[in-house]
Amino acid sequence: MSFKHVALLGLGLIASSISLALKRNGSEIKITGFSRSKETRHRANKIGFCEVFESIKDCVSGADLIILCVPVGAMADTMSVAAPYLSKGAIVTDVGSVKAHIIREINPRIPKGVSFVPAHPIAGTENSGPEAGFASLFDGRWCILTPTSETSIYATLKVKDFWQSLGATVQEMDADHHDLVLSVTSHAPHLIAFTMVGVADEFAQVTKSEVINYSAAGFRDFTRLAASDPIMWRDIFVNNKDAALEILGRFTEELFRLQSAIRRKDGEFLQKYFERTRELRRNIIEAGQDTSEPNFGRKS
Amino acid sequence: MSFKHVALLGLGLIASSISLALKRNGSEIKITGFSRSKETRHRANKIGFCEVFESIKDCVSGADLIILCVPVGAMADTMSVAAPYLSKGAIVTDVGSVKAHIIREINPRIPKGVSFVPAHPIAGTENSGPEAGFASLFDGRWCILTPTSETSIYATLKVKDFWQSLGATVQEMDADHHDLVLSVTSHAPHLIAFTMVGVADEFAQVTKSEVINYSAAGFRDFTRLAASDPIMWRDIFVNNKDAALEILGRFTEELFRLQSAIRRKDGEFLQKYFERTRELRRNIIEAGQDTSEPNFGRKS
Repeated sequence: MSFKHVALLGLGLIASSISLALKRNGSEIKITGFSRSKETRHRANKIGFCEVFESIKDCVSGADLIILCVPVGAMADTMSVAAPYLSKGAIVTDVGSVKAHIIREINPRIPKGVSFVPAHPIAGTENSGPEAGFASLFDGRWCILTPTSETSIYATLKVKDFWQSLGATVQEMDADHHDLVLSVTSHAPHLIAFTMVGVADEFAQVTKSEVINYSAAGFRDFTRLAASDPIMWRDIFVNNKDAALEILGRFTEELFRLQSAIRRKDGEFLQKYFERTRELRRNIIEAGQDTSEPNFGRKS
Repeated sequence: MSFKHVALLGLGLIASSISLALKRNGSEIKITGFSRSKETRHRANKIGFCEVFESIKDCVSGADLIILCVPVGAMADTMSVAAPYLSKGAIVTDVGSVKAHIIREINPRIPKGVSFVPAHPIAGTENSGPEAGFASLFDGRWCILTPTSETSIYATLKVKDFWQSLGATVQEMDADHHDLVLSVTSHAPHLIAFTMVGVADEFAQVTKSEVINYSAAGFRDFTRLAASDPIMWRDIFVNNKDAALEILGRFTEELFRLQSAIRRKDGEFLQKYFERTRELRRNIIEAGQDTSEPNFGRKS
């Protein structure tokens, strides 16, 4: 590990997991942290996964790696406040789920002599806050870097090393393509889960207790995604609007195709469709991206 | 347990789980089984969870409880073949996920002196076939009975006892209401999962390997439901058409409301919506209907 001092701006699930993964490695690296919420700083201090500071200035002073771990909508302001205090040669990176927007916002705020490497670790749980972190969060997961033509190759390599040391496999990708891929594998599934849970919650002919009691028939799977951090997701949809709307439009077309097959009682079409989707889960399990245990191996 | 001989028509996940749960109880009950597929009969024989017969006639002869465990679309034919061989006083029940349709199909096929109690255990996994069963499948799960005004109260009580002995909690409900509740908690979530997986599978700008590699960002949750038995689900949608289309229509309206909020960048609306859906998961966990472990406690 070639970094000596990592500064975490934002102290939620990802920041605390980064810190715990670094400590798991037995690394002697200095880890400082900041959150604009006094309560979050207090909670992070109690867990003790990093040295918590009351100001961005004190947090980033002397750091050679600064990681923006705040919601996408707060990144630009956080960067503006940090900029004057960054050391020459420092590298800034982020963990945001949308990349083109972040590059547009962050690049102009990076001071001379400092590099920015846009990054997105594909890892997380439905829980949020500093208590939600754990050291193995990134093990076997992907981390996507989206360097632009202006990004320092040296800084990109150092950030790549960093993520590999936390257990992740690193892949480089164009930022716009990243935003489209993630709208398919993350943003659209989340929005659809939020929608389904919202519908169930207010479907007047069915009571809330019925929805809860009979949720094991499938619905409960959606509630995990729909329990994810509301502010994080608000910022993702607002700032990856075009890609999200494109895939949601495609989703609606496909839903209408299936609804029409149900209306026509076209069993053959439905069966063939469901055989194809079953196949994709097998591919995901074979690629080590999900458990093969039934029901995700859940205990309840 | 007041039944002496249970006949299982169909030898998939539910039938094998019923048998294993009965044996777990140390019950001396006779369990016979039949599947129209020779291969499935062979596999069930190898596992040895029941005495497998080559014909429905031999399977049901002398049974005092006959459980229809075939896909919804095969129930009527199975019942027609079994009817002449049922003993006087026998009780027929089923495990189908749609109830109004099954009642319409099965009731006229029940011989004099035999009772039919429509039932639906809310339990299962994405796996199917005789190997997929396990003894604890029904523990802490609900089983819904939908007796009609013609249904024998005595037979209903006996089927209730039976499901309780397998670990389930039994609830009675009107068949049409059952079909609406399940369209919210099971049928619509499955169709939406099938749709999302179908979209991801053929979204031309995103490769299949990208969909697989980055599925841990949310998408993989949908693939579990979309890996469920294609024939079972074909029959459910075709035979619970009206309720399924009603809730899917409601889903589309709601999706459009959220899409419109994204288009207008209405962050406040989105955040409030996501806070509400987060709450519902807490309720489900408190009701013991899902695990509180992050990521469903999955190991990968």
